[in-house]
Amino acid sequence: MIETEISRVILEEYNRRLLEHLENDVVIVGAGPAGLAAGYYLAKAGIKTTILEKKLSIGGGIWGGAAGLNVIVVQDKDILDEFEMTAKRQKGLYVIDAIEFAAALAYKAKKVGAEIFNLMEAEDIILKTEAVEGVVVNGTAINIAGLHVDPFCISSKYVIDATGHPAEVVNMLKKRRPELFPKGIQESFMDVETAEAGVVEKAGEIFPGLYVAGMSVCAVFNLPRMGPIFGGMLKSGKKVAELINEKIQSADA
Amino acid sequence: MIETEISRVILEEYNRRLLEHLENDVVIVGAGPAGLAAGYYLAKAGIKTTILEKKLSIGGGIWGGAAGLNVIVVQDKDILDEFEMTAKRQKGLYVIDAIEFAAALAYKAKKVGAEIFNLMEAEDIILKTEAVEGVVVNGTAINIAGLHVDPFCISSKYVIDATGHPAEVVNMLKKRRPELFPKGIQESFMDVETAEAGVVEKAGEIFPGLYVAGMSVCAVFNLPRMGPIFGGMLKSGKKVAELINEKIQSADA
Amino acid sequence: MIETEISRVILEEYNRRLLEHLENDVVIVGAGPAGLAAGYYLAKAGIKTTILEKKLSIGGGIWGGAAGLNVIVVQDKDILDEFEMTAKRQKGLYVIDAIEFAAALAYKAKKVGAEIFNLMEAEDIILKTEAVEGVVVNGTAINIAGLHVDPFCISSKYVIDATGHPAEVVNMLKKRRPELFPKGIQESFMDVETAEAGVVEKAGEIFPGLYVAGMSVCAVFNLPRMGPIFGGMLKSGKKVAELINEKIQSADA
Amino acid sequence: MIETEISRVILEEYNRRLLEHLENDVVIVGAGPAGLAAGYYLAKAGIKTTILEKKLSIGGGIWGGAAGLNVIVVQDKDILDEFEMTAKRQKGLYVIDAIEFAAALAYKAKKVGAEIFNLMEAEDIILKTEAVEGVVVNGTAINIAGLHVDPFCISSKYVIDATGHPAEVVNMLKKRRPELFPKGIQESFMDVETAEAGVVEKAGEIFPGLYVAGMSVCAVFNLPRMGPIFGGMLKSGKKVAELINEKIQSADA
Amino acid sequence: MIETEISRVILEEYNRRLLEHLENDVVIVGAGPAGLAAGYYLAKAGIKTTILEKKLSIGGGIWGGAAGLNVIVVQDKDILDEFEMTAKRQKGLYVIDAIEFAAALAYKAKKVGAEIFNLMEAEDIILKTEAVEGVVVNGTAINIAGLHVDPFCISSKYVIDATGHPAEVVNMLKKRRPELFPKGIQESFMDVETAEAGVVEKAGEIFPGLYVAGMSVCAVFNLPRMGPIFGGMLKSGKKVAELINEKIQSADA
Amino acid sequence: MIETEISRVILEEYNRRLLEHLENDVVIVGAGPAGLAAGYYLAKAGIKTTILEKKLSIGGGIWGGAAGLNVIVVQDKDILDEFEMTAKRQKGLYVIDAIEFAAALAYKAKKVGAEIFNLMEAEDIILKTEAVEGVVVNGTAINIAGLHVDPFCISSKYVIDATGHPAEVVNMLKKRRPELFPKGIQESFMDVETAEAGVVEKAGEIFPGLYVAGMSVCAVFNLPRMGPIFGGMLKSGKKVAELINEKIQSADA
Amino acid sequence: MIETEISRVILEEYNRRLLEHLENDVVIVGAGPAGLAAGYYLAKAGIKTTILEKKLSIGGGIWGGAAGLNVIVVQDKDILDEFEMTAKRQKGLYVIDAIEFAAALAYKAKKVGAEIFNLMEAEDIILKTEAVEGVVVNGTAINIAGLHVDPFCISSKYVIDATGHPAEVVNMLKKRRPELFPKGIQESFMDVETAEAGVVEKAGEIFPGLYVAGMSVCAVFNLPRMGPIFGGMLKSGKKVAELINEKIQSADA
Amino acid sequence: MIETEISRVILEEYNRRLLEHLENDVVIVGAGPAGLAAGYYLAKAGIKTTILEKKLSIGGGIWGGAAGLNVIVVQDKDILDEFEMTAKRQKGLYVIDAIEFAAALAYKAKKVGAEIFNLMEAEDIILKTEAVEGVVVNGTAINIAGLHVDPFCISSKYVIDATGHPAEVVNMLKKRRPELFPKGIQESFMDVETAEAGVVEKAGEIFPGLYVAGMSVCAVFNLPRMGPIFGGMLKSGKKVAELINEKIQSADA
Repeated sequence: MIETEISRVILEEYNRRLLEHLENDVVIVGAGPAGLAAGYYLAKAGIKTTILEKKLSIGGGIWGGAAGLNVIVVQDKDILDEFEMTAKRQKGLYVIDAIEFAAALAYKAKKVGAEIFNLMEAEDIILKTEAVEGVVVNGTAINIAGLHVDPFCISSKYVIDATGHPAEVVNMLKKRRPELFPKGIQESFMDVETAEAGVVEKAGEIFPGLYVAGMSVCAVFNLPRMGPIFGGMLKSGKKVAELINEKIQSADA
Repeated sequence: MIETEISRVILEEYNRRLLEHLENDVVIVGAGPAGLAAGYYLAKAGIKTTILEKKLSIGGGIWGGAAGLNVIVVQDKDILDEFEMTAKRQKGLYVIDAIEFAAALAYKAKKVGAEIFNLMEAEDIILKTEAVEGVVVNGTAINIAGLHVDPFCISSKYVIDATGHPAEVVNMLKKRRPELFPKGIQESFMDVETAEAGVVEKAGEIFPGLYVAGMSVCAVFNLPRMGPIFGGMLKSGKKVAELINEKIQSADA
Repeated sequence: MIETEISRVILEEYNRRLLEHLENDVVIVGAGPAGLAAGYYLAKAGIKTTILEKKLSIGGGIWGGAAGLNVIVVQDKDILDEFEMTAKRQKGLYVIDAIEFAAALAYKAKKVGAEIFNLMEAEDIILKTEAVEGVVVNGTAINIAGLHVDPFCISSKYVIDATGHPAEVVNMLKKRRPELFPKGIQESFMDVETAEAGVVEKAGEIFPGLYVAGMSVCAVFNLPRMGPIFGGMLKSGKKVAELINEKIQSADA
Repeated sequence: MIETEISRVILEEYNRRLLEHLENDVVIVGAGPAGLAAGYYLAKAGIKTTILEKKLSIGGGIWGGAAGLNVIVVQDKDILDEFEMTAKRQKGLYVIDAIEFAAALAYKAKKVGAEIFNLMEAEDIILKTEAVEGVVVNGTAINIAGLHVDPFCISSKYVIDATGHPAEVVNMLKKRRPELFPKGIQESFMDVETAEAGVVEKAGEIFPGLYVAGMSVCAVFNLPRMGPIFGGMLKSGKKVAELINEKIQSADA
Repeated sequence: MIETEISRVILEEYNRRLLEHLENDVVIVGAGPAGLAAGYYLAKAGIKTTILEKKLSIGGGIWGGAAGLNVIVVQDKDILDEFEMTAKRQKGLYVIDAIEFAAALAYKAKKVGAEIFNLMEAEDIILKTEAVEGVVVNGTAINIAGLHVDPFCISSKYVIDATGHPAEVVNMLKKRRPELFPKGIQESFMDVETAEAGVVEKAGEIFPGLYVAGMSVCAVFNLPRMGPIFGGMLKSGKKVAELINEKIQSADA
Repeated sequence: MIETEISRVILEEYNRRLLEHLENDVVIVGAGPAGLAAGYYLAKAGIKTTILEKKLSIGGGIWGGAAGLNVIVVQDKDILDEFEMTAKRQKGLYVIDAIEFAAALAYKAKKVGAEIFNLMEAEDIILKTEAVEGVVVNGTAINIAGLHVDPFCISSKYVIDATGHPAEVVNMLKKRRPELFPKGIQESFMDVETAEAGVVEKAGEIFPGLYVAGMSVCAVFNLPRMGPIFGGMLKSGKKVAELINEKIQSADA
Repeated sequence: MIETEISRVILEEYNRRLLEHLENDVVIVGAGPAGLAAGYYLAKAGIKTTILEKKLSIGGGIWGGAAGLNVIVVQDKDILDEFEMTAKRQKGLYVIDAIEFAAALAYKAKKVGAEIFNLMEAEDIILKTEAVEGVVVNGTAINIAGLHVDPFCISSKYVIDATGHPAEVVNMLKKRRPELFPKGIQESFMDVETAEAGVVEKAGEIFPGLYVAGMSVCAVFNLPRMGPIFGGMLKSGKKVAELINEKIQSADA
Repeated sequence: MIETEISRVILEEYNRRLLEHLENDVVIVGAGPAGLAAGYYLAKAGIKTTILEKKLSIGGGIWGGAAGLNVIVVQDKDILDEFEMTAKRQKGLYVIDAIEFAAALAYKAKKVGAEIFNLMEAEDIILKTEAVEGVVVNGTAINIAGLHVDPFCISSKYVIDATGHPAEVVNMLKKRRPELFPKGIQESFMDVETAEAGVVEKAGEIFPGLYVAGMSVCAVFNLPRMGPIFGGMLKSGKKVAELINEKIQSADA
């Protein structure tokens, strides 16, 4: 029956992909701008990368632009060119349609081979000795439904927290190691210029095996918040991808 | 201050786009597979087209594949090639990643010039004489918040109901003209093959100015439902785009 | 890593079982007393049987006995002996612990080879020509979470509605064929003796491919309701199993 | 079409006003009695003033009087005369209809040129160096709907916290600078006379660029609460308006 | 103690007003644009008038303008002048700040002596013989809290349904006399010009003692809906006030 | 009209009673067993006493007995005789119907002249110098409805916290004077005998003007909790009534 | 251990009472004014009577008087004297404290031997041949919690629907016998005098074994509603008690 | 009437069982894997054992396997043989159907005589001197319904906290004795091997009369969490059963 055949090919394909990605080079938590950018550059470099997104759709805070007006801003054009996005120059800034921005990031990341699982929620990290070795995940729907159900595990050499403002993965570490974060995990007051620079500069490894990219950088380093300007997000993701790539190359060498 | 400059360029750009699209050739309600496909083909043909999406993200039921496993199925490959999607042949079907499918549709529709407004909910139609002339819309957030606030209006020569199973626009017509739908608006039992054929065949104008595409076709004509197979959706959207295009061309001629 | 190995064997085993049961001789919807009894007798007879349960746990209304006091009643002892349950004779009735009753039914059904999937919700039937050929299912968690996600399909030669009072599968049929149920689907006033007899007598096929067992029998035939007495439930499930078994045997013969 | 023309003039007018008020002399958060009074006196003095109100209607706690009985009390009459309100003398107090009180404040504030945006919620402050330079805002409906959407920014030379008991703007400062508020932000026990005097006396600048008026004065200085007596509220707003006016005059001089 | 003195004067004043208005010439249900206009003109003519508003604040759908943008539109200027509102001419329409519009209506209605009780919800009508003689009311908070509590009664010679789209008072009549409304109570599709004319023309008495004004006119007569244009609302309220005034004058004569 | 006459006499009677009790000798917060007993003995002694109950019905935790079985236990009979309750001796304890127990307490308290206002919620205390002088109250329905509305004030020479486990009035004091309660406000582990003795022994004044009776005694003194045994509750209320009575008598003397 | 002894005597007493009342002469559903009055007169006449109340407390709509003001009205004094309630004559009506009214009814009903079970919800009737023979009940808490749990049964010769406005028991009959109620079950518009007379006159048996008393009389016979006047309620309950008493006496004779 | 007879035998049987188990040797809180295993081994050894389960069904986190896929894993086979479960060897692990696992545990525990009460929630411990002597319980439905109702008490010589991750019983102790748990009660990061060993090794008495088994061991000793592997759970329950058995034997000796 064609109805069960469709079910069958979907189940087989999904399971094949999920089983293949139970072990990874890199797991990125969060498919917002920083996570998708990191995933794009890592996958493009041939690194086995899985992006976990807890929502049904990817894109994080991109879709709503500012206050639900679906337009966002970036400051330089080169990274837009990489993703073939069409922007418009206005008062020294580039404005771009939020939907195109989100769609292009996901489309390009998939094209270079990043694997994305949506509706999948990281709820903890695997940490046996002093290094993060993967994440503990469960279905988002299971969690929304409030069901009492055990999770499963996805391992990776490196985990990137690209969950944005809440810095969810870093908070899993903080939950049992609060002493590592004496100043707390919280962004500072709005200041776009400081934030755009800092989110790239400070992106990197903050604990063995754990990297931060995008707004979680601001949260961890108490940098300012920045609003609907997304260039720093992409560069932050790109920088983390480069740092991990170098490490893997030198480890392989 | 750069913070207000960013706000300013976003507000100006969004307003420019919204004011420009208060009057359209075509308004498509719903940015799921049929709506995005229709929008792509219409915009590509140079027709002024606005897609209204009530959710924060586009894509409708695509993202979750079957039961949350993000894989979907199509039966023929040519329409996938049009949108540059990568599919895999399995047991006579093509399987494709749901995220790539959704992202590619939105990305391509934007690239050819379709305008998309998300978080915007059609709540009624404009119908003065015997033809639909546009839609009455409000912010989705306003509605979720349960605020008592008046809507605004977007006019168009043609309105496409691409809202899927609930056939929301057609139901606005039915609310005050129930006699037009003596058999009700409801799909029939699951039967993939009949549905895939019917959703294309029956797509078209069902009341002056009002077209149906995608699952709303099945609802209006009591055709079977079909599950996570999306080829018919795209073709249904494409067919409606062609019908409207012809009409506009002949009207212009 | 042992953590991912555990995930891997669970995913592989579950997928193997699910793929194996996409096509069945019998699908039973509802793992309450009638569904588990039917599943037990069918599987014991070597018939390929899948039970779908939408809740996290099996047992339906058994666990709470009367008003949450976990004791239930049966009138004859032989069916209890079949499931090795320990009952106590009191005033001409047998009283038995509700937890033992639920656990024994599930334990025995599994031991003889019935397949049970919990957290899986039948939302429609497959009906192409004039016979039910399977069910359309989705994850319960997906539905509770209110996510807009397509279902998948499980086919079977026969479907048993063992969903109890709401007669959920029969109502899927009624939704589009209300004329088949001119008196509606609803039990009558409480009357234990009439109900206990009728729920067995009327159990059977009510539409090509669709059987009813347990309280859905009362709902379909407007028989009385009966409260926390479960002997009729088991016999009703047993009778339907026998009817289907005969049909399969004669078809094979 | 007149329907779209109405939409067009509303969008254009609102956008013009909003763009004009992205930069201000003063932003007042909260359109309750203190905020409206401050806005009235500032606008009357020719200062560019924007009042942000998160609810759909202005008036804050005025409408409900005491326990929902729409009558309120003031102690002296002169400020009522300024707003042309009709009060009645009883037992040494003036009683006045709460609806007239709220309506008159808003009506008069608008008449002298204060700009009010409702459904707009300040969620943070802009603070780059040691002075508040504006607020970060989002749509109230966006927040109620729980959407993940970025805010935008409105700048001003001075920000007035007129949010009442919760002292919302001051708490934004406290969130990252708790050391500035060693005794916490909380009113003390009910004591009308002390409160009425203190809410005027202590009204003023509490951090560079940040003023408090009305009940947020009581919260910040741990003064008593006071119930449905509103004279102090108006005077507190008036005093802050005068302080800021002096500062602006001397800066301009 | 001053605290209890304040409570005392509020309780005494409110009770005096409420007891005084248990019997009225006119009760208006709903303090939106039509209700406030009707109340203004009635009170100005010296007629004893009570307006009941179920929300905490008056104004109904005015505050949010279109989609939350607080600007509204009227077509002619004379009625604005009556209420001393400041409007701006744009493309043949007058645009006016929604907050000023709501505040001015309430302020002026109070000034001429209309009594307004907010947080008070009409839940039924008093109808002993064939005429409406008053309304059955309860506290809005009581209803929101879901408490099982009896109502009280307010009598009047005439009741005006100014509840807008839901036509709440008319629906109380319809609940037990559905035969009076064979076409149902529902507005028709958006059509501004037809609606603006009809809402004035059809405003009046629809059952002995029961008048409709504002959007409830459209609902009762199945006239089109109209969106954020409010001139017809005010005129509709004014017309009903004039009709009742004439009746009272002729009865008194 | 009789309908408005009924409303009128209710409004007048309620207002008379409420205005009369804005100033009291004693305000008791909570009409559970301890509050009703205290109210009974105080009123019987001729002291002006008001009991505030936030729920719709009085009785607090009495109605549900143990786990919803409406039977409760007391250890001695004399206090039952005072309230003319019928108990049954079993295993050295007296069992009594919970409904009779609650009804008798309220009935007797009213008969001796205690005033009770239900649906009225104390939300704060009046504390100007170092003594509690009354309570700040609001309508329960207002609070449940989440309306932003000011409270009113009821003064008294003495306030009794009879709110049970949560010790709500004491917690109002603790909110701003945490240093007065270094061990927190919380009962200890279940131990009936210690609790029954302690709840009487420790009942009394804990801050100038503030008394505790019933379970709030256990909370304040960290005594054990006790379950559905109510003799101590009544005696605790009685003792506090006697202490206050003595104080008033000696003050009057 | 005294803690378990208390539990033991409560469990034993409750079970003894519940088992004793599984079979009754009369079951009254609803412990509001009519149900308690009926229960009082029946029990006083020596008839075995059980009152089922679904809420935690008895009293129904009494406690809140009118709009939460706890005062109610009766027209004649004799029935108040029967229950030893203290009323005050005002404008030809008697006003009485709502709390005293509710408490006295319950107290007196218990004293003469009526059995009351609260937190117990009738969900259906037992109807085997053409007469109601009892009710199907479940725990209210079970139902609120939404648990899937079977009910138990309480039999009686006569069932009284004293559930007030919703006429819950009659609606159980109507659910499966709608033809018995061609005009529906719904009160008419407010009209106190007609209602006060009719609620007594029409009280009685409406189907073999099923009686109505109180507001359910108005609902069943489409009589007017009446608001916070309770004399008719008590007389209606009394009349039904007398009718049943006569029947039992003549049956016994 | 058979309907009441069924109710009667259920009530009598449940009450007999509940009264019999008000005093126990051992009370186990939680009928998940560790609790059921402990209950099985204790009852098998002839020790009077009651298991309290707050949910409607037993099994805890077993039913959902990993992420809702109903398969679980164990590492050794012997304990499975004890419960007659059918497992399959895969990659050095045993996979087993979750439903069979849960059902077998409950079935076997009941067969050897463990008493299980579901829908019963321990909310506190009885602790008079320095030893836990029982638990304070209430109906789960009562708690879900948010009713204000007193609990009852069940005593035992030993209490086992088998509530899993939340370690609910231990937290009752911690609530008033936080100093006993200086490191808090919280599992550590996922690490299967360490956890599987530790959960058995550390299982035992942690305070006089209070034992921990299963995941509450990990929470109390800050051991790692482990996911859907259940061998350690069963062994942990078994070990605690043996420790208590020894103690009882030596006490009896």
